[in-house]
Amino acid sequence: MYNIIFITHNKHKFEEAYEKAKLFNINLQWINLEYEEIQDDSLEEIARSSCLKILELRPDLKDKSFFVEDAGLFINCLRGFPGPYSAYVFRTIGNWGILKLLHDVPDNERSAFFKSVIAYYHSGKIELFSGVIQGKIIKSLKGSQGFGFDPIFLPAGSNKTFAQMNKESKNLKGHRGKSLQELFTSLSKPPSSLKDR
Amino acid sequence: MYNIIFITHNKHKFEEAYEKAKLFNINLQWINLEYEEIQDDSLEEIARSSCLKILELRPDLKDKSFFVEDAGLFINCLRGFPGPYSAYVFRTIGNWGILKLLHDVPDNERSAFFKSVIAYYHSGKIELFSGVIQGKIIKSLKGSQGFGFDPIFLPAGSNKTFAQMNKESKNLKGHRGKSLQELFTSLSKPPSSLKDR
Repeated sequence: MYNIIFITHNKHKFEEAYEKAKLFNINLQWINLEYEEIQDDSLEEIARSSCLKILELRPDLKDKSFFVEDAGLFINCLRGFPGPYSAYVFRTIGNWGILKLLHDVPDNERSAFFKSVIAYYHSGKIELFSGVIQGKIIKSLKGSQGFGFDPIFLPAGSNKTFAQMNKESKNLKGHRGKSLQELFTSLSKPPSSLKDR
Repeated sequence: MYNIIFITHNKHKFEEAYEKAKLFNINLQWINLEYEEIQDDSLEEIARSSCLKILELRPDLKDKSFFVEDAGLFINCLRGFPGPYSAYVFRTIGNWGILKLLHDVPDNERSAFFKSVIAYYHSGKIELFSGVIQGKIIKSLKGSQGFGFDPIFLPAGSNKTFAQMNKESKNLKGHRGKSLQELFTSLSKPPSSLKDR
Protein backbone atom coordinates (compact mmCIF):
# COMPACT_ATOMS: atom_id res chain seq x y z
CA MET A 1 0.00 0.00 0.00
CA TYR A 2 1.34 3.41 -1.02
CA ASN A 3 1.69 6.25 1.45
CA ILE A 4 1.67 9.60 -0.28
CA ILE A 5 1.12 13.14 0.90
CA PHE A 6 -1.12 15.83 -0.59
CA ILE A 7 0.19 19.29 0.28
CA THR A 8 -2.61 21.85 0.19
CA HIS A 9 -4.18 24.35 2.54
CA ASN A 10 -7.59 23.47 1.13
CA LYS A 11 -9.27 20.87 3.32
CA HIS A 12 -12.00 20.18 0.75
CA LYS A 13 -9.44 19.37 -1.93
CA PHE A 14 -7.77 16.96 0.45
CA GLU A 15 -11.02 15.22 1.38
CA GLU A 16 -11.97 14.80 -2.27
CA ALA A 17 -8.58 13.27 -3.03
CA TYR A 18 -8.58 11.09 0.09
CA GLU A 19 -11.79 9.34 -0.96
CA LYS A 20 -10.50 8.71 -4.45
CA ALA A 21 -7.12 7.45 -3.19
CA LYS A 22 -8.83 4.80 -1.04
CA LEU A 23 -10.28 3.23 -4.20
CA PHE A 24 -6.72 2.69 -5.40
CA ASN A 25 -5.57 1.29 -2.08
CA ILE A 26 -3.48 4.41 -1.54
CA ASN A 27 -3.18 5.91 1.92
CA LEU A 28 -3.30 9.66 1.40
CA GLN A 29 -1.93 11.91 4.11
CA TRP A 30 -2.46 15.64 4.43
CA ILE A 31 0.07 18.38 5.06
CA ASN A 32 -1.58 21.76 5.40
CA LEU A 33 1.16 24.08 4.25
CA GLU A 34 1.10 27.55 2.71
CA TYR A 35 3.73 27.99 0.04
CA GLU A 36 4.48 30.67 -2.52
CA GLU A 37 3.43 30.09 -6.10
CA ILE A 38 5.28 31.70 -8.98
CA GLN A 39 3.71 33.80 -11.72
CA ASP A 40 3.71 31.85 -14.97
CA ASP A 41 1.30 31.31 -17.87
CA SER A 42 1.68 27.54 -17.45
CA LEU A 43 0.08 25.58 -14.63
CA GLU A 44 2.74 22.92 -15.18
CA GLU A 45 5.58 25.34 -14.43
CA ILE A 46 3.74 26.71 -11.38
CA ALA A 47 3.11 23.24 -9.93
CA ARG A 48 6.66 22.06 -10.64
CA SER A 49 8.10 25.16 -9.01
CA SER A 50 5.82 24.67 -5.98
CA CYS A 51 7.32 21.21 -5.42
CA LEU A 52 10.81 22.72 -5.41
CA LYS A 53 9.69 25.49 -3.07
CA ILE A 54 8.23 22.93 -0.67
CA LEU A 55 11.46 20.93 -0.66
CA GLU A 56 13.27 24.12 0.38
CA LEU A 57 10.78 24.80 3.17
CA ARG A 58 10.61 21.21 4.32
CA PRO A 59 13.85 19.33 3.57
CA ASP A 60 12.49 16.44 5.65
CA LEU A 61 10.14 15.66 2.73
CA LYS A 62 13.05 14.78 0.44
CA ASP A 63 12.62 11.08 1.20
CA LYS A 64 8.80 11.13 0.99
CA SER A 65 6.33 11.07 -1.89
CA PHE A 66 4.10 14.12 -2.12
CA PHE A 67 2.11 16.18 -4.63
CA VAL A 68 0.60 19.61 -5.13
CA GLU A 69 -2.26 20.56 -7.43
CA ASP A 70 -3.06 23.79 -9.28
CA ALA A 71 -6.01 24.52 -11.54
CA GLY A 72 -7.53 27.22 -13.69
CA LEU A 73 -10.28 28.14 -16.15
CA PHE A 74 -9.03 28.89 -19.67
CA ILE A 75 -11.38 30.80 -21.99
CA ASN A 76 -10.30 30.41 -25.60
CA CYS A 77 -11.56 33.70 -27.05
CA LEU A 78 -9.79 35.54 -24.19
CA ARG A 79 -6.40 33.97 -25.02
CA GLY A 80 -6.68 31.64 -22.04
CA PHE A 81 -7.68 34.29 -19.47
CA PRO A 82 -8.06 33.91 -16.47
CA GLY A 83 -5.88 30.76 -16.63
CA PRO A 84 -3.36 30.38 -13.81
CA TYR A 85 -4.69 33.54 -12.14
CA SER A 86 -8.26 32.24 -11.86
CA ALA A 87 -8.36 32.58 -8.07
CA TYR A 88 -7.28 36.22 -8.17
CA VAL A 89 -9.62 37.04 -11.04
CA PHE A 90 -12.53 35.40 -9.22
CA ARG A 91 -11.76 37.43 -6.08
CA THR A 92 -11.73 40.69 -8.03
CA ILE A 93 -14.06 40.70 -11.06
CA GLY A 94 -15.85 37.39 -10.32
CA ASN A 95 -18.38 35.62 -12.52
CA TRP A 96 -19.93 39.01 -13.27
CA GLY A 97 -16.67 40.16 -14.86
CA ILE A 98 -16.34 37.08 -17.06
CA LEU A 99 -19.95 37.38 -18.27
CA LYS A 100 -19.36 41.04 -19.07
CA LEU A 101 -16.18 40.26 -21.02
CA LEU A 102 -18.16 37.70 -23.05
CA HIS A 103 -21.31 39.90 -23.36
CA ASP A 104 -22.19 39.82 -27.20
CA VAL A 105 -19.82 36.85 -27.84
CA PRO A 106 -21.89 34.29 -29.79
CA ASP A 107 -22.59 30.84 -28.44
CA ASN A 108 -20.12 29.05 -30.72
CA GLU A 109 -17.21 31.23 -29.57
CA ARG A 110 -17.63 30.72 -25.83
CA SER A 111 -15.55 27.56 -25.51
CA ALA A 112 -13.43 27.14 -22.40
CA PHE A 113 -11.80 24.43 -20.37
CA PHE A 114 -10.93 23.75 -16.79
CA LYS A 115 -7.50 22.24 -16.27
CA SER A 116 -5.93 20.67 -13.19
CA VAL A 117 -2.24 19.89 -12.98
CA ILE A 118 -0.57 17.72 -10.36
CA ALA A 119 3.16 17.81 -9.72
CA TYR A 120 4.19 14.62 -7.93
CA TYR A 121 7.57 14.43 -6.19
CA HIS A 122 9.19 11.13 -5.37
CA SER A 123 12.75 9.77 -5.31
CA GLY A 124 14.31 13.06 -6.35
CA LYS A 125 12.17 13.66 -9.41
CA ILE A 126 8.94 15.42 -10.33
CA GLU A 127 6.25 13.94 -12.56
CA LEU A 128 3.29 15.89 -13.97
CA PHE A 129 -0.30 14.68 -14.40
CA SER A 130 -3.20 16.67 -15.77
CA GLY A 131 -6.94 16.58 -16.21
CA VAL A 132 -8.93 18.75 -18.63
CA ILE A 133 -12.68 19.27 -18.97
CA GLN A 134 -13.87 20.99 -22.15
CA GLY A 135 -17.02 23.06 -22.06
CA LYS A 136 -18.31 26.58 -22.51
CA ILE A 137 -19.20 29.72 -20.64
CA ILE A 138 -22.96 30.19 -20.47
CA LYS A 139 -24.73 33.55 -20.43
CA SER A 140 -25.90 33.71 -16.82
CA LEU A 141 -25.16 31.99 -13.51
CA LYS A 142 -26.78 28.59 -12.93
CA GLY A 143 -26.59 26.57 -9.72
CA SER A 144 -25.37 27.30 -6.24
CA GLN A 145 -23.03 24.42 -5.41
CA GLY A 146 -19.28 24.32 -5.92
CA PHE A 147 -17.28 27.52 -5.92
CA GLY A 148 -15.51 30.01 -8.17
CA PHE A 149 -16.49 29.90 -11.82
CA ASP A 150 -18.57 26.72 -11.42
CA PRO A 151 -21.95 28.51 -12.03
CA ILE A 152 -20.96 29.77 -15.50
CA PHE A 153 -19.17 26.65 -16.79
CA LEU A 154 -21.15 24.03 -18.67
CA PRO A 155 -19.10 20.89 -19.37
CA ALA A 156 -19.43 19.51 -22.91
CA GLY A 157 -22.22 16.91 -23.15
CA SER A 158 -23.79 17.96 -19.86
CA ASN A 159 -26.97 19.91 -19.23
CA LYS A 160 -25.79 20.95 -15.77
CA THR A 161 -23.12 23.48 -14.83
CA PHE A 162 -20.53 22.43 -12.26
CA ALA A 163 -22.57 24.43 -9.73
CA GLN A 164 -25.69 22.37 -10.51
CA MET A 165 -23.91 19.07 -9.78
CA ASN A 166 -23.60 17.54 -6.37
CA LYS A 167 -20.11 17.08 -4.99
CA GLU A 168 -19.91 13.42 -6.01
CA SER A 169 -20.76 14.11 -9.67
CA LYS A 170 -18.37 17.01 -9.89
CA ASN A 171 -15.56 14.99 -8.29
CA LEU A 172 -16.19 12.20 -10.76
CA LYS A 173 -16.46 14.36 -13.88
CA GLY A 174 -14.25 17.25 -12.85
CA HIS A 175 -10.78 18.21 -14.00
CA ARG A 176 -9.25 17.57 -10.56
CA GLY A 177 -10.87 14.16 -10.43
CA LYS A 178 -9.21 13.38 -13.74
CA SER A 179 -5.71 14.50 -12.76
CA LEU A 180 -5.98 12.57 -9.48
CA GLN A 181 -7.14 9.53 -11.45
CA GLU A 182 -4.07 9.85 -13.70
CA LEU A 183 -1.73 10.04 -10.71
CA PHE A 184 -3.33 7.20 -8.75
CA THR A 185 -3.58 4.94 -11.82
CA SER A 186 0.11 5.45 -12.52
CA LEU A 187 0.95 4.55 -8.90
CA SER A 188 -1.11 1.41 -8.86
CA LYS A 189 0.49 -0.08 -11.96
CA PRO A 190 2.65 -3.10 -11.16
CA PRO A 191 6.38 -2.35 -10.76
CA SER A 192 7.32 -3.96 -14.09
CA SER A 193 5.14 -1.60 -16.07
CA LEU A 194 6.44 1.29 -14.01
CA LYS A 195 9.93 0.37 -15.13
CA ASP A 196 8.80 0.35 -18.74
CA ARG A 197 7.53 3.93 -18.71
CA MET B 1 29.29 58.66 -5.87
CA TYR B 2 26.97 55.69 -5.38
CA ASN B 3 27.18 52.58 -7.52
CA ILE B 4 23.92 50.69 -7.56
CA ILE B 5 22.46 48.03 -9.82
CA PHE B 6 19.00 47.87 -11.42
CA ILE B 7 18.02 44.27 -12.11
CA THR B 8 15.48 44.07 -14.92
CA HIS B 9 15.16 42.41 -18.28
CA ASN B 10 13.53 45.56 -19.65
CA LYS B 11 16.10 47.76 -21.35
CA HIS B 12 13.71 50.72 -21.57
CA LYS B 13 13.11 50.66 -17.83
CA PHE B 14 16.85 50.66 -17.26
CA GLU B 15 17.46 53.57 -19.63
CA GLU B 16 14.73 55.64 -17.98
CA ALA B 17 16.24 54.97 -14.55
CA TYR B 18 19.81 55.58 -15.74
CA GLU B 19 19.01 59.12 -16.87
CA LYS B 20 17.28 59.96 -13.63
CA ALA B 21 20.08 58.46 -11.52
CA LYS B 22 22.64 60.73 -13.20
CA LEU B 23 20.80 63.78 -11.85
CA PHE B 24 21.45 62.43 -8.36
CA ASN B 25 25.09 61.71 -9.07
CA ILE B 26 24.34 57.98 -8.88
CA ASN B 27 26.07 55.58 -11.23
CA LEU B 28 23.41 53.05 -12.21
CA GLN B 29 24.50 49.69 -13.59
CA TRP B 30 22.33 47.16 -15.36
CA ILE B 31 22.00 43.44 -14.78
CA ASN B 32 19.67 41.83 -17.28
CA LEU B 33 18.37 38.86 -15.33
CA GLU B 34 15.17 36.86 -15.56
CA TYR B 35 13.86 35.85 -12.18
CA GLU B 36 10.66 34.25 -10.94
CA GLU B 37 8.04 36.48 -9.36
CA ILE B 38 5.62 35.13 -6.79
CA GLN B 39 1.83 35.40 -6.96
CA ASP B 40 0.62 37.89 -4.37
CA ASP B 41 -1.98 40.66 -4.20
CA SER B 42 0.69 43.06 -2.96
CA LEU B 43 3.37 44.55 -5.21
CA GLU B 44 5.46 45.11 -2.08
CA GLU B 45 5.53 41.39 -1.26
CA ILE B 46 6.31 40.48 -4.86
CA ALA B 47 9.21 42.93 -5.07
CA ARG B 48 10.60 41.92 -1.68
CA SER B 49 10.44 38.26 -2.61
CA SER B 50 12.16 38.98 -5.94
CA CYS B 51 15.14 40.46 -4.07
CA LEU B 52 15.43 37.28 -2.01
CA LYS B 53 15.11 35.13 -5.14
CA ILE B 54 17.88 37.10 -6.84
CA LEU B 55 20.18 36.67 -3.84
CA GLU B 56 19.65 32.92 -4.17
CA LEU B 57 20.43 32.95 -7.89
CA ARG B 58 23.36 35.34 -7.56
CA PRO B 59 25.02 35.03 -4.12
CA ASP B 60 27.80 37.31 -5.45
CA LEU B 61 25.34 40.22 -5.15
CA LYS B 62 25.18 39.92 -1.36
CA ASP B 63 27.81 42.62 -0.94
CA LYS B 64 26.33 44.91 -3.61
CA SER B 65 23.43 47.36 -3.67
CA PHE B 66 20.68 46.53 -6.14
CA PHE B 67 16.97 47.01 -6.74
CA VAL B 68 14.03 45.54 -8.65
CA GLU B 69 10.83 47.29 -9.67
CA ASP B 70 7.29 46.01 -10.14
CA ALA B 71 4.20 47.95 -11.18
CA GLY B 72 0.50 47.57 -11.84
CA LEU B 73 -2.76 49.33 -12.66
CA PHE B 74 -5.36 49.17 -9.88
CA ILE B 75 -8.99 49.92 -10.80
CA ASN B 76 -11.01 50.75 -7.72
CA CYS B 77 -14.46 49.53 -8.83
CA LEU B 78 -12.86 46.19 -9.87
CA ARG B 79 -11.39 45.64 -6.40
CA GLY B 80 -7.92 46.53 -7.63
CA PHE B 81 -7.97 44.33 -10.76
CA PRO B 82 -5.69 43.86 -12.71
CA GLY B 83 -3.19 44.94 -10.00
CA PRO B 84 -0.06 42.79 -9.75
CA TYR B 85 -1.18 40.73 -12.75
CA SER B 86 -1.40 43.72 -15.10
CA ALA B 87 1.14 42.31 -17.56
CA TYR B 88 -0.74 39.00 -17.89
CA VAL B 89 -4.12 40.74 -18.14
CA PHE B 90 -2.79 43.08 -20.82
CA ARG B 91 -1.45 40.12 -22.82
CA THR B 92 -4.80 38.33 -22.68
CA ILE B 93 -7.80 40.69 -22.55
CA GLY B 94 -5.89 43.94 -23.21
CA ASN B 95 -7.30 47.46 -23.18
CA TRP B 96 -10.37 46.13 -24.95
CA GLY B 97 -11.13 43.87 -21.98
CA ILE B 98 -10.78 46.66 -19.43
CA LEU B 99 -13.06 48.97 -21.45
CA LYS B 100 -15.63 46.19 -21.71
CA LEU B 101 -15.52 45.51 -17.96
CA LEU B 102 -16.14 49.22 -17.35
CA HIS B 103 -18.72 49.53 -20.15
CA ASP B 104 -21.75 51.35 -18.47
CA VAL B 105 -19.69 52.39 -15.40
CA PRO B 106 -20.27 56.15 -14.93
CA ASP B 107 -17.47 58.67 -15.13
CA ASN B 108 -17.23 59.26 -11.38
CA GLU B 109 -16.72 55.55 -10.65
CA ARG B 110 -13.83 54.95 -13.04
CA SER B 111 -11.02 55.94 -10.68
CA ALA B 112 -7.79 53.97 -10.87
CA PHE B 113 -4.15 54.33 -10.03
CA PHE B 114 -0.84 53.15 -11.34
CA LYS B 115 1.60 52.05 -8.67
CA SER B 116 5.31 51.27 -8.87
CA VAL B 117 7.18 49.56 -6.06
CA ILE B 118 10.95 49.33 -5.73
CA ALA B 119 12.63 46.84 -3.42
CA TYR B 120 16.18 47.99 -2.73
CA TYR B 121 18.69 45.57 -1.25
CA HIS B 122 21.81 46.75 0.48
CA SER B 123 23.89 45.64 3.48
CA GLY B 124 21.71 42.62 4.19
CA LYS B 125 18.37 44.43 4.28
CA ILE B 126 15.57 45.36 1.92
CA GLU B 127 13.91 48.78 1.79
CA LEU B 128 10.73 49.56 -0.13
CA PHE B 129 9.92 52.72 -2.11
CA SER B 130 6.76 53.43 -4.05
CA GLY B 131 5.20 55.86 -6.46
CA VAL B 132 1.49 56.24 -7.16
CA ILE B 133 -0.35 58.20 -9.86
CA GLN B 134 -4.08 58.67 -9.35
CA GLY B 135 -6.32 58.99 -12.37
CA LYS B 136 -9.20 57.33 -14.18
CA ILE B 137 -9.98 54.94 -16.99
CA ILE B 138 -11.42 56.77 -19.98
CA LYS B 139 -14.00 55.33 -22.38
CA SER B 140 -11.84 54.74 -25.46
CA LEU B 141 -8.16 54.50 -26.35
CA LYS B 142 -6.28 57.78 -26.78
CA GLY B 143 -2.68 58.12 -27.92
CA SER B 144 -0.15 55.72 -29.36
CA GLN B 145 2.96 56.17 -27.23
CA GLY B 146 3.94 54.19 -24.15
CA PHE B 147 2.69 50.64 -23.74
CA GLY B 148 0.18 48.48 -21.89
CA PHE B 149 -2.75 50.31 -20.37
CA ASP B 150 -1.27 53.77 -21.10
CA PRO B 151 -3.92 54.66 -23.78
CA ILE B 152 -6.86 54.27 -21.38
CA PHE B 153 -5.35 55.91 -18.27
CA LEU B 154 -5.83 59.65 -17.74
CA PRO B 155 -3.77 60.96 -14.81
CA ALA B 156 -5.66 63.32 -12.48
CA GLY B 157 -5.23 66.96 -13.50
CA SER B 158 -3.99 66.04 -16.98
CA ASN B 159 -5.76 66.31 -20.32
CA LYS B 160 -3.45 63.72 -21.87
CA THR B 161 -3.36 59.98 -21.31
CA PHE B 162 0.01 58.37 -20.63
CA ALA B 163 -0.05 57.29 -24.29
CA GLN B 164 -0.44 60.92 -25.43
CA MET B 165 2.65 62.06 -23.49
CA ASN B 166 6.16 61.92 -24.82
CA LYS B 167 8.62 59.73 -22.97
CA GLU B 168 10.13 62.61 -21.00
CA SER B 169 6.75 63.80 -19.63
CA LYS B 170 5.68 60.31 -18.71
CA ASN B 171 9.01 59.61 -16.99
CA LEU B 172 8.65 62.83 -15.04
CA LYS B 173 4.99 62.43 -14.05
CA GLY B 174 4.76 58.65 -14.01
CA HIS B 175 4.56 56.23 -11.10
CA ARG B 176 7.96 54.67 -11.88
CA GLY B 177 9.54 58.12 -12.04
CA LYS B 178 8.16 58.76 -8.57
CA SER B 179 9.40 55.53 -6.98
CA LEU B 180 12.84 56.05 -8.55
CA GLN B 181 12.82 59.61 -7.20
CA GLU B 182 12.04 58.27 -3.72
CA LEU B 183 14.89 55.79 -3.88
CA PHE B 184 17.48 58.18 -5.30
CA THR B 185 16.50 60.97 -2.92
CA SER B 186 16.95 58.64 0.03
CA LEU B 187 20.40 57.61 -1.25
CA SER B 188 21.60 61.13 -1.76
CA LYS B 189 20.74 62.26 1.74
CA PRO B 190 23.82 62.95 3.86
CA PRO B 191 24.92 60.02 6.06
CA SER B 192 23.74 61.68 9.30
CA SER B 193 20.13 61.84 8.15
CA LEU B 194 20.36 58.24 6.93
CA LYS B 195 21.24 57.22 10.47
CA ASP B 196 18.21 59.07 11.83
CA ARG B 197 15.67 57.25 9.68
